[in-house]
Amino acid sequence: MYKDLVSEFKHIYREHGKTTIAARAEAEQAADRISQHGYKNIFFAGSGGSITTIMAFAEIIKRLSDIPAYWEEAAELMVSNYKQLNQDSLVVIMAKTGTMIETVQLSAYCKEHHIPCIGFVMIDDTPVANQVAYKVMLDVESSPIRYLTLYYFVFRLLYNHGDFPDYESFCASLEQLPEALCHVLDAYDETAQGFVERYHEEPFQLWIYSGLNQGEALKYAADIAEELFRQKTQIMNAAEFFHGCLEIADDDTNIILLKSEGPTRVLDERVERFLRKYASKKLVVIDTAQFELPGVDDAYRGYFSPVILNVCIEELITNYMIERTGKSAATRRYYGIVDY
Amino acid sequence: MYKDLVSEFKHIYREHGKTTIAARAEAEQAADRISQHGYKNIFFAGSGGSITTIMAFAEIIKRLSDIPAYWEEAAELMVSNYKQLNQDSLVVIMAKTGTMIETVQLSAYCKEHHIPCIGFVMIDDTPVANQVAYKVMLDVESSPIRYLTLYYFVFRLLYNHGDFPDYESFCASLEQLPEALCHVLDAYDETAQGFVERYHEEPFQLWIYSGLNQGEALKYAADIAEELFRQKTQIMNAAEFFHGCLEIADDDTNIILLKSEGPTRVLDERVERFLRKYASKKLVVIDTAQFELPGVDDAYRGYFSPVILNVCIEELITNYMIERTGKSAATRRYYGIVDY
Repeated sequence: MYKDLVSEFKHIYREHGKTTIAARAEAEQAADRISQHGYKNIFFAGSGGSITTIMAFAEIIKRLSDIPAYWEEAAELMVSNYKQLNQDSLVVIMAKTGTMIETVQLSAYCKEHHIPCIGFVMIDDTPVANQVAYKVMLDVESSPIRYLTLYYFVFRLLYNHGDFPDYESFCASLEQLPEALCHVLDAYDETAQGFVERYHEEPFQLWIYSGLNQGEALKYAADIAEELFRQKTQIMNAAEFFHGCLEIADDDTNIILLKSEGPTRVLDERVERFLRKYASKKLVVIDTAQFELPGVDDAYRGYFSPVILNVCIEELITNYMIERTGKSAATRRYYGIVDY
Repeated sequence: MYKDLVSEFKHIYREHGKTTIAARAEAEQAADRISQHGYKNIFFAGSGGSITTIMAFAEIIKRLSDIPAYWEEAAELMVSNYKQLNQDSLVVIMAKTGTMIETVQLSAYCKEHHIPCIGFVMIDDTPVANQVAYKVMLDVESSPIRYLTLYYFVFRLLYNHGDFPDYESFCASLEQLPEALCHVLDAYDETAQGFVERYHEEPFQLWIYSGLNQGEALKYAADIAEELFRQKTQIMNAAEFFHGCLEIADDDTNIILLKSEGPTRVLDERVERFLRKYASKKLVVIDTAQFELPGVDDAYRGYFSPVILNVCIEELITNYMIERTGKSAATRRYYGIVDY
C-alpha cells in the first residue's frame, strides 16, 4: 500500500554518506581551528528541527568533558544576557535555509558581540552562512546523514581537548553508520507502517525519553505530530515520569517510549516495566538496541541512538503519516500561511 | 461557594514568612561555608516538586555569574556519569519527606563520591538530612515561603562570588515578599476560581513559559494537572512554540501562557499576540507584572516570577481544583497505590 521509502532512503544514505564522510576534514579543520583558538564553554542553540538535532551533543560533552555545555532556544539565548555567553564562548548553530529569523538574528548577535559562532549550514551564501565565524556544510537532503558531520565535529573537539583519545576508532564506526542505517530501514519499515495504521488518528501521544533522546522526542512530538498532523503531544523525561505524569498512563493513551542504549537505559527500563503492567494496550517501544549495526563498535552504539531514532521516526513514520493522512507541511494553518 | 483559602494562606505567609526571614542566617552561613570551600560548577537536582522549584535558580546563575549551573533529574544525574560532576562540584537538592528514593540515593551517591551536596530539607533526621554535607531547613507548610530560603542561599552564593554586589538591597525586597504575596492572593483569588469553574474538565492543557517560569509550568502540568486531575498537558517553551506546537493552537484548546517579567518577556509577548489573534477563546494569560508587590524593588521583580506563579497556581488554582473536582492526592491510581 505505501510507497517504497526504503529503497529511496538506502540510495541516499549510501551516496550522501560517502560524500559526507569524504568531507570529514571540513568538520575536523573547523574543530581544530576552534580548539587552537580556545573556548571556555559551548552553547548549542537553535529552534525546531535544528535545536532538536544538536541538543544531544551538549549532553555528550557533559558526559565526556569538563567543558560546560548548554543547549538553548536561539531566541531565548539572545535576550537572556547570560554572563557565561561571551567572547570566550563557542556558539554552535545549525541552519537549513539560512534565512530563519531566529538563526539569522543569533548569528548577527554573535558577530556583533564578538562571540565565536560556528554554523552548520545546508545552503551557502545565506545570511547565516555569511555571518558566522566558522562554517561547515551539511548534507542538504538527508537528516540522518547530517548527523554524521556533527559527530565528526564534536568528537574531534573532545579529542583535541584530551577527552576522547579513541577518536580514530570512533570514526571507523561512524563510517559504517550509513550502511548500518540501511539495516535499520529494513528492520523497522514494517513496524513503522503498522504504527501509522494504528495510531494516525490518535488525538494525543505521550513520548517518553531519557538522555540523548530528548531531541528526537521533541522533534517528532512538536515539530511533526503537532505541526503537520495536529496531534497533541507531551514529551516526558523517563525519570520525571514517575512524579506525576504516570497518572495519565492507561490503556486508552498512546504512549511511545524511546529506549536508549547509554547509561540512562535503566531509567527507560523502569518506565517500560510500569507501562507493560498498567498501560500496555497502546504502548509502542522503540528500542535502538534491537537493531544490528554491522561494523559499529558496541562501545559507541549509545552515542548513535538519536540518529537511529531519526531513521525510524522522522524518515519512516513521518513520511508514512504524510501518505496516510494526506496532511503535510503543505496543509499547515499558521506557519508560512498567516502573519504573526 | 469555595472555602476561604486567602485568609488561611495570608496567615501562613505572614507567620511562616517571619520565621523564615528570621532564619536567613542559616542559609547564608551554608552559602558562606560553601563559598569558602570553593566549587567549580553547580548541579540543581531533584524530581517532581523539588526539581521544579529549584530549576529557576540554575537559570538565575547563568544570567548573573560565570559559574556553570545545570538542573537535572536526580535519577538521571546518578547514572549519567558526567565528567563535570565531581569533588569540585556542588549538588543542590531539596527534600520534602527526605525519604523519596531518588533523593535518598542521590545524597548517598554524593557522599560516596565525595561530591559536596547541600540539602534543603523540611524534616530533620531523615536519610537525606543525615547524608548531605550541608543542610538547611525549609518551611514545612508553605511552598511560596520555602522559595525565600532558596533565594537567600543562591543570591548569597552569587554575592560571595562577586556576581551580585546588591545582596543587602535584594534582601530588603525579599523581606517584603510574604506581605506582597498576600496582595497576590487578594488580586488573583477570584480569577483562580473562575479558571477552575471554566476549565476543570478540560481534557488537555497547553502551558507556555519562558525563562525562569519553566519550573512552575512543569510543576502544575505534570505534578498536579496530570497527577491529581488526570488532565493531559504539554508544556512548551515560548520561543520553541513557533516551530511546530503553534499548529495545535485554536479556540478549542485550553492554553495557559505564563508571562514572565525578566528579559524573556518579549518572547511571551510574541506568543500572546499570536494567541489573541488565532486561539483566544480558551486562552488564559497569567502575567506576574499585573500584581502590585509593595516594597519589592522593580529591579528584582523578574527574579520573583516563579514564587508569584506558585501562589496563583499551586496555592489557589490547585486547591480550588481539588475542591471542585473531588480529586486529590488521595484519588491517585498508581503513585503510592500499586507497586512498580
